[in-house]
Amino acid sequence: MKIYLIRHGIAELKAIDKPDADRMLAKRGIVKIQKIAQKLSRLDIKFDVIITSPYRRAQETAIILKQAALSEQIIEHSALKPEGNILEWINSIQEQNYPIDTNICLVGHQPNLTDWTELLVWGKIQNRLSLKKAGIIGIELLNSSNPIGTCELFLLTSPKWMIN
Amino acid sequence: MKIYLIRHGIAELKAIDKPDADRMLAKRGIVKIQKIAQKLSRLDIKFDVIITSPYRRAQETAIILKQAALSEQIIEHSALKPEGNILEWINSIQEQNYPIDTNICLVGHQPNLTDWTELLVWGKIQNRLSLKKAGIIGIELLNSSNPIGTCELFLLTSPKWMIN
Repeated sequence: MKIYLIRHGIAELKAIDKPDADRMLAKRGIVKIQKIAQKLSRLDIKFDVIITSPYRRAQETAIILKQAALSEQIIEHSALKPEGNILEWINSIQEQNYPIDTNICLVGHQPNLTDWTELLVWGKIQNRLSLKKAGIIGIELLNSSNPIGTCELFLLTSPKWMIN
Repeated sequence: MKIYLIRHGIAELKAIDKPDADRMLAKRGIVKIQKIAQKLSRLDIKFDVIITSPYRRAQETAIILKQAALSEQIIEHSALKPEGNILEWINSIQEQNYPIDTNICLVGHQPNLTDWTELLVWGKIQNRLSLKKAGIIGIELLNSSNPIGTCELFLLTSPKWMIN
């Protein structure tokens, strides 16, 4: 099973009169995610499901990926929120009992995405990975019944390496 | 200081009458490295120096990178050989006393390149990184006097993500 962790695109600035969860993608954030989506499409990547944080900037990122025909399905999951817990998400993955060749896309926030990657791949968080907005991490889940510390990292890239 | 670790391209098959060190790049290996070199050039990447394994498939990879004007200098270093020792290379880096904004490209072999990356980033080898031929790893050296376990990983990609 392959998991692609995608960080939401560049969002509009924080404002005191707007909850953080409601911040939308900025125009340049939309353009960059569209380019990433086109690239993934050229590479014939398909996601069986896109699981997104319910925050608006992540939802909008997920919708752009779906619009590029990368997936037919978007699910919101509270574990993808900034304060989300990976164990909650792992439980839900195990309940789903996905086939071994499933491709899952997670759209969420930092530092969650690199923290989760380090947990899944090396078993502990050491803050040694850099992931820019619209960046992608690819990991292979080799043991879905015991994923912590047993995954393999095959991709880590900022958007500049993908779209230029 | 940024270090780009590039695995040599696809080489001709092993033959009993030819030392492993003399294996040349296969035609498709040359083409793929040329595409990678073009991509790096589009991204305005410049290497202050390319340090290569003395094995022919690595040398040829380094020459293609230099021909694309990515660097003016290629150095061979025995530490980049398949049986090479990272500590020997670290010593030579420290002796050179490179400026902080230096970009170094290492061209070598597996499993050295991912072993070294894990050592530099997490301090120990756990065989959790996948690096295909012509793939690239990018790490940032934050503490050149004590690099083991103190670097940051910002790039890990197979050629397919770079050139399609």
